[in-house]
Amino acid sequence: MTGSSKSALIVSAHSADFVWRAGGAIALHTKQGYAVHIVCLSFGERGESAKLWRKGEMTEQRVKDARREEAQAAADILGATVEFFDIGDYPMRADKDTIFRLADVYRRVQPEFVLSHSLKDPYNYDHPLATHMAQEARIIAQAEGYKPGEKIIGAPPVYCFEPHQPEQCDWRPDVLLDITEVWDTKYQAIQCMAGQEHLWEYYTRVAQQRGVQAKRNVGITSSKNIQYAEGYQSIFPRVTENLA
Amino acid sequence: MTGSSKSALIVSAHSADFVWRAGGAIALHTKQGYAVHIVCLSFGERGESAKLWRKGEMTEQRVKDARREEAQAAADILGATVEFFDIGDYPMRADKDTIFRLADVYRRVQPEFVLSHSLKDPYNYDHPLATHMAQEARIIAQAEGYKPGEKIIGAPPVYCFEPHQPEQCDWRPDVLLDITEVWDTKYQAIQCMAGQEHLWEYYTRVAQQRGVQAKRNVGITSSKNIQYAEGYQSIFPRVTENLA
Amino acid sequence: MTGSSKSALIVSAHSADFVWRAGGAIALHTKQGYAVHIVCLSFGERGESAKLWRKGEMTEQRVKDARREEAQAAADILGATVEFFDIGDYPMRADKDTIFRLADVYRRVQPEFVLSHSLKDPYNYDHPLATHMAQEARIIAQAEGYKPGEKIIGAPPVYCFEPHQPEQCDWRPDVLLDITEVWDTKYQAIQCMAGQEHLWEYYTRVAQQRGVQAKRNVGITSSKNIQYAEGYQSIFPRVTENLA
Amino acid sequence: MTGSSKSALIVSAHSADFVWRAGGAIALHTKQGYAVHIVCLSFGERGESAKLWRKGEMTEQRVKDARREEAQAAADILGATVEFFDIGDYPMRADKDTIFRLADVYRRVQPEFVLSHSLKDPYNYDHPLATHMAQEARIIAQAEGYKPGEKIIGAPPVYCFEPHQPEQCDWRPDVLLDITEVWDTKYQAIQCMAGQEHLWEYYTRVAQQRGVQAKRNVGITSSKNIQYAEGYQSIFPRVTENLA
Amino acid sequence: MTGSSKSALIVSAHSADFVWRAGGAIALHTKQGYAVHIVCLSFGERGESAKLWRKGEMTEQRVKDARREEAQAAADILGATVEFFDIGDYPMRADKDTIFRLADVYRRVQPEFVLSHSLKDPYNYDHPLATHMAQEARIIAQAEGYKPGEKIIGAPPVYCFEPHQPEQCDWRPDVLLDITEVWDTKYQAIQCMAGQEHLWEYYTRVAQQRGVQAKRNVGITSSKNIQYAEGYQSIFPRVTENLA
Amino acid sequence: MTGSSKSALIVSAHSADFVWRAGGAIALHTKQGYAVHIVCLSFGERGESAKLWRKGEMTEQRVKDARREEAQAAADILGATVEFFDIGDYPMRADKDTIFRLADVYRRVQPEFVLSHSLKDPYNYDHPLATHMAQEARIIAQAEGYKPGEKIIGAPPVYCFEPHQPEQCDWRPDVLLDITEVWDTKYQAIQCMAGQEHLWEYYTRVAQQRGVQAKRNVGITSSKNIQYAEGYQSIFPRVTENLA
Repeated sequence: MTGSSKSALIVSAHSADFVWRAGGAIALHTKQGYAVHIVCLSFGERGESAKLWRKGEMTEQRVKDARREEAQAAADILGATVEFFDIGDYPMRADKDTIFRLADVYRRVQPEFVLSHSLKDPYNYDHPLATHMAQEARIIAQAEGYKPGEKIIGAPPVYCFEPHQPEQCDWRPDVLLDITEVWDTKYQAIQCMAGQEHLWEYYTRVAQQRGVQAKRNVGITSSKNIQYAEGYQSIFPRVTENLA
Repeated sequence: MTGSSKSALIVSAHSADFVWRAGGAIALHTKQGYAVHIVCLSFGERGESAKLWRKGEMTEQRVKDARREEAQAAADILGATVEFFDIGDYPMRADKDTIFRLADVYRRVQPEFVLSHSLKDPYNYDHPLATHMAQEARIIAQAEGYKPGEKIIGAPPVYCFEPHQPEQCDWRPDVLLDITEVWDTKYQAIQCMAGQEHLWEYYTRVAQQRGVQAKRNVGITSSKNIQYAEGYQSIFPRVTENLA
Repeated sequence: MTGSSKSALIVSAHSADFVWRAGGAIALHTKQGYAVHIVCLSFGERGESAKLWRKGEMTEQRVKDARREEAQAAADILGATVEFFDIGDYPMRADKDTIFRLADVYRRVQPEFVLSHSLKDPYNYDHPLATHMAQEARIIAQAEGYKPGEKIIGAPPVYCFEPHQPEQCDWRPDVLLDITEVWDTKYQAIQCMAGQEHLWEYYTRVAQQRGVQAKRNVGITSSKNIQYAEGYQSIFPRVTENLA
Repeated sequence: MTGSSKSALIVSAHSADFVWRAGGAIALHTKQGYAVHIVCLSFGERGESAKLWRKGEMTEQRVKDARREEAQAAADILGATVEFFDIGDYPMRADKDTIFRLADVYRRVQPEFVLSHSLKDPYNYDHPLATHMAQEARIIAQAEGYKPGEKIIGAPPVYCFEPHQPEQCDWRPDVLLDITEVWDTKYQAIQCMAGQEHLWEYYTRVAQQRGVQAKRNVGITSSKNIQYAEGYQSIFPRVTENLA
Repeated sequence: MTGSSKSALIVSAHSADFVWRAGGAIALHTKQGYAVHIVCLSFGERGESAKLWRKGEMTEQRVKDARREEAQAAADILGATVEFFDIGDYPMRADKDTIFRLADVYRRVQPEFVLSHSLKDPYNYDHPLATHMAQEARIIAQAEGYKPGEKIIGAPPVYCFEPHQPEQCDWRPDVLLDITEVWDTKYQAIQCMAGQEHLWEYYTRVAQQRGVQAKRNVGITSSKNIQYAEGYQSIFPRVTENLA
Repeated sequence: MTGSSKSALIVSAHSADFVWRAGGAIALHTKQGYAVHIVCLSFGERGESAKLWRKGEMTEQRVKDARREEAQAAADILGATVEFFDIGDYPMRADKDTIFRLADVYRRVQPEFVLSHSLKDPYNYDHPLATHMAQEARIIAQAEGYKPGEKIIGAPPVYCFEPHQPEQCDWRPDVLLDITEVWDTKYQAIQCMAGQEHLWEYYTRVAQQRGVQAKRNVGITSSKNIQYAEGYQSIFPRVTENLA
C-alpha cells in the first residue's frame, strides 16, 4: 500500500461475509486504485460452517483453518488485504480491547469509506454487532485524546451492505453500485467459498436483481448497460457539490 | 437554454419557496452550466403574503402581481427561468390538467434532477401536495403511452428540500450541498422577498447550521472550507460507481 | 358562549365519535369554563348505524334523524354546542367548500385546542380524512389572505383521540388526560348512544386501562387518585416554561 | 363459481400486475378449490405498454385490446375469472362511482381474502391508489347502510403483494407463500405477457429468492422442499387458535 | 413429555410475566397436546415484588421463594413445565453462560414456537433483554458448530407478547389468539399471583379488549364467538400455503 | 438544597454536554426554585477535548482537571450542583456499579423530571449510552427490592435534549422550552467552555431557530415574545388535566 493511494476498510463479522455482500465494491475500487483492507472479526467457525462440520472429524481449529484459507483466497482474487481478529462467533462480543484494536486499524488505513453489515438482523446477532463495533471504533479513531499524537482519521462515510433478508432487517438501499465490469471477478471470489456452494446462485441472482433496479433508477433512456449491482445503505449524509 | 446543456427542474408550491429552500442549489448549478427551470404552482397569495395583506388596500390580483415580481427578480439573480401555474393556494388541489401540464414541462426540460418539498408537513398542506404532483407528473412523463411519439424522460433523481420545521415533517437530509461559493448570490435573491423580511436571517442561520454539519461530515481533517450548505432528502437510490 | 371564555373545537367524522373518544375531555373543559364546540361532519348514517338499519323500515333520513338526536343529547350532557355538516359517510370526501366552511368555524370559535381522529386507520377511511380536513381548515383559517380583514386564528394545538384499534393505526398517546372527576358525566353521555350499546362497556374499559397507565406515569408514590383517563397524541410540539 | 365454494378477490391496478405479483397465490388457491376473481382497474395502456407503443401504428384502443387479451389468457391459465374496470392509468383516479362499483364486487364475491398492491410506491402512483380503493370499497361493503338489505361482507384479510423495488416502497413481507407446486402454471401465465418479456426472468428470480427465504424460515431441518414463493404483507392482524 | 409430542418454549424475564401475558397461549396449546416449557430468567425479586417487600421482615431469599411458589402453581394450572434460571433482575444482564444455558434448553425442547417479551420497553429494561437473549440463544442453537454432534433446532417462529403499555413499546399485534375456551384456566393461574392482585382485573380487561378486536377482525358475520384473546407480534415471516 | 424544594436531575455523558443542550432548562428551573443536580458521567477527556490536546504537554489528568473546572464554573452560573462520575469516555461502558451509583443519586435527589441525551446518535456512542444508563437507573430506583427500606422514587418524566445533528439521530422535539428570560445566563455558562469556542455561535443559532419555531407554535397572534428556546423529546406520556 503506497502512501499516496486512497484506501477503504471492510469490517466483516465472519470470514465469508465480505465476499457475498461487498465483493463487487472491493473489486471495483481496487481496480480504481484503492487499497482495500478487510477485517474479519471471526471465521464464522460455529455459525456459518455447517457443511464443514457435517464432514465429520472436525475440530474448531480445523474449521477455522479452512475458513481462513477460503477468505484469503477470495481477498487475493478481489485484490484486497485481509486480517483476522479471531474473536469468536455465535455469540460475538464487543470488548474494549477489540474496539481499540479496530480503532488502530482505522488510524493505520485512514479509509475514504467503510463497509459493514446492516444495523439490524433478527437472523444473525453477530452482524449488527460488527457494524456497532465498526462505528464505535471509527468514533474513537477520530478522537484526539485516544493515543494523543497519532494522526486521527477524518469522517469516512459508512455503508451497510445487503443482509440475507433485507426487509426483515429494516435495510433500505440508497446507493446502487454498478459492478457490471467486475462481476466476473466477484463470481470467481464467490467460488472460493466451497463450504457454502448453495449460496453461489443465490447471490448471483441478488446481483442481477439489483442490476435491473439500478438500470431502472438511471432510466431506460440511459446508455448505461448495467447488469449487476450491489445495494448499500448509507449511515451519514453525503456532502457534495452536484445533485445530478 | 441551448440544446446541449444539462438541465434541472424545481417545483415550488408558492412563489417564494424556491428561494429559501433551494436558492443555493439553483445558483450552484446554473454556475456549473445547468439550465435550471422553476415552476411556481401558486403565488402563495393567500397563505404566504401576510405582510402584503396587512398593508391594506389589497386585492388578490395585486398580491399576485407583487409576488410574481419578487419571484421573477429572485430567479433572475439565481440565473434560472421561471413560470407560474397560478393554480391557487390554501388550499391547493391537484387536478389532472395540472398534472399533465407539469408532465409537459418535464418532457420539455428533460431534467437531470428535480427538487421539490418534503413528503409531509403538518404546518402546510400545499407543500407535500406539490411534491406529490412533481412525482406523479414525472411518472407520466416517463410513460410511452402519454402523448405517444414525444420524447419520454429518463429517471431523474428527486430531492426534497428543507421544510421550516424539519423534525416535525419527518424530513431527514441524506445530502448536504456545499453552497459556500454561491452564498452571496443566494442571499441577494433572498433579499428580493420584501414581504417576508423576518425570514432572511432565519434562512441565513439554516445555511450556517447545515454548513457546520457538512463540515463535520467530511471530517475536520478535510481541507474543504464549507461555511454554508443546503440539506436535501433523496427519494430514489443513487446509482454510482464510486463510494468515496 | 361569552366573549371572554376560552374555547375548544372538536371535529368528529361521525356523530357519535366525539362521545366515545373525547367525551371526557369535553366534560372536563366545559367544567373548567371552556366553551366547547363540536362539528359532526356526518351522522355516520351508512357506516355506523348498523343496529338502526337492522330494525327494518328505515330510510337514510330516519337514520340521520335518530343519530342527530342522540348526538345532540350527548353534547347537552357534556355541556358543549354541536353542529352537523351532513356531508355524508362511507365514503366521506373533502371538497373545498367543506374545508372553507370548517375554516369559518375556526375563525368564529377561535379555539385554544382542537381534537380530531388518528392520522391513519385501516378500518375506517372517514376518520383520518376528518383529521386531514381539520388540519387543512386550521391552516387556511391562519392565512391573512383567506377572507382578508377577518380575525385570523393562532396556532392551537391539535390532538388525535384514540382510535378503536390503536396499534393498527400507528397511534401512540403522548398525553394521558385524567378524566376521573367527570367520568360519570361521560358515561351518561355514552348511554345516549342507544344504537351502539355493545360499545358502552368497551369504552369504559378503555378509560380504566388508560387510567391505570396514567397512574403509572405519575408514579405510585403520587397522591393523585386517577381511575379514568383518555389518551391523546399531539401533532405539534408543546411550548412551555416548565418541564415537571 | 358454485354457491358453496370459498372465494378470493384480487385488485390489480393494471392488467398484468396480478400475474407477476400474485399469479402463484391465484393458481394455488384455485387448485385448492377457491373461486378467485380478479378486477383489473385499468389496462396499463399508457404506463405499462411501452413495447406495444414502440411497434408504431398504435392507438390507445388497440393497446387496450392487446392488453385485455393477454390478461384474459393469463387468468384462464391460472383458473380465475377477470373483469376490467377500464378507468384509465397514468394517472388513475378514485371517484365515488368506481369505489361503489368495487364495493358491489365485494358483496357479490364475498371473498375470504383480498390481494392488492403495496401501500406506497414512489415509482408508481397507480399502485398504492389501487390498494386505497380496494380498502375503501371493502369498508363500504361492510356497512349496513350501503344498499341496505344486501348481504354485507365479513372482514376478509387484505394482503399487499410484492412491488418492483420492495425496500423503496416500505414493503415488508410477513407471509411467505409456498408456490412450488404451482410454479409451472404461474410461469405459463407469465409467458402470456408478450409485451413485457424482459420481466419474465426477473420475476422468476423473485420467486426463487423468496423460495430460499421461505426455506430458511421453516428451518433447514424441515422436510419441506420449498423452491418458489411469493411474499405478502398483511394489513390486519390474523385471528387464530394456533401459533406453530 | 413424550418424544412424539410437539412443544413450545416461553422465555419470561420475571417469574410472573408468563402468566399475565401468555397464560392463554400456554393453556390453549397444552390443551392441544403441546408440551410447553417455561424459562423464568429471574424471580422479579427486586423489581416486581413490591407487595411482598412492603410486608416487612423480608429478605431477598424469602421473596424469591414466594415468587417461585406462585409461578410453579400457575405453571401447574396451565399444564406447563417451568424452570428458574435465577440470574437476577433490576438490572438483568446477558452473559455468555446464560445464553449457552438457554441454547441448551432450545436443543432439549426443540420448540415449534417461542414466546417472549416486546423488543422495546422504556418502563422495563429486563423485558427486551429477555427477548434479546431468547433470540440470540435460538440462533446459537441453530448453529452446527455449537456443541457439534447435538441435534440442532429448526427455525421456530418467535412471538412478542403484550407489554404493559403497548404503544409506548412500539409493540403492534399482528396475531390475535382466541383464548376464549381456556380463559377460566388462565384466570385461575392469574389468581396464584397473590402479590400482584391489582393486576388481575387489569389483565382481564386486556383479554376482553383483544377479544372484541379479534371478533372485529374475523368480521361480524362470522359465527365465531370470541370473548377473550391475547395479542402477539411476530418477528419472522410466516410460511404458509393458504391465505384465508 | 432544602427538603421542601422541588428538584431535577441532568445526566450528561461528557462534562460540557449539559451546558450546550440543557443550559436554558437548568437556569430556568433554578430560577423557578428547583434544586437542579447534574451528573457528568465522564469529562469527555478523550473525545471532546480536541483543543486542549492540541496545546501539547497534555496528560489525561490535566485534561480532566481543565474540563472539571469549566463544568463546575458553568454549573455555578446556572445555579446547579454537579458531580463527576469519571467513568471514562470513548468508549463509555455501563457496568452494574455505575448503574447502582446513579440509582442512588435518583433516590437522593427525588427529581421531578430528568434530562439526558437522544436515544440514538451515529456520531457519538457515549450519548445514547448515557440515556440508557439514566433510564435503567431510574427503573431500579423505583424498585422496592433495591435497597429495601429506602424511599423509592416516583415516575419522573424523562426528556432527551437536542443532539448535534437532530435528524440523523431520529430526534424529534415535542416540547419547545421558552428560555428567553434566561438566555443571558445560558450564554454566560457557554462561555466557560473555553476549549470549544467554535460551538458558542452554533448553539446560539440553535436557540434562535428553536425560538422562532416556538413562536410559530404558539401562533403569531400570541402576545408571547419568544426569542430563544430549547427543544426536548419526551419519552413518557404526559399526565395532565388540561389540553390548552
